[in-house]
Amino acid sequence: MQGSSYRSRLGKRIRKLRSQRGWSQEEFSDVCSINRSYMGRIERGELNLTLDSLEKVARGLGISVSALLKGVI
Amino acid sequence: MQGSSYRSRLGKRIRKLRSQRGWSQEEFSDVCSINRSYMGRIERGELNLTLDSLEKVARGLGISVSALLKGVI
Repeated sequence: MQGSSYRSRLGKRIRKLRSQRGWSQEEFSDVCSINRSYMGRIERGELNLTLDSLEKVARGLGISVSALLKGVI
Repeated sequence: MQGSSYRSRLGKRIRKLRSQRGWSQEEFSDVCSINRSYMGRIERGELNLTLDSLEKVARGLGISVSALLKGVI
């Protein structure tokens, strides 16, 4: 599926930015108010994320959604 | 709901960019391979869009998803 090609890149970026901030995946899930297993799927690039979910992740990282996606999609 | 505050702004931006390209909403729906009534709901800011849907819209507009979202969310 063409639309899914960005998902892995996005998941890796989220994981990298989260790690740079010193958070475990579990800690970051709590920061974002996102279910822990769902966060695992996000970082593995398994999901067709909605903007509402992306906004939670971006807010947790302290950046905008557009900044999070820049160069990825 | 906090996450939905950007939707109206995003819908308006999509409508503006689509109009600037000279397309009716129906023509643009066909360009993007998106259902016409669904495109109406997108432009009215009614939906929690997925990245796959946003990618279709952005591709139709000839810009990246991150560019489409810049300053909006």
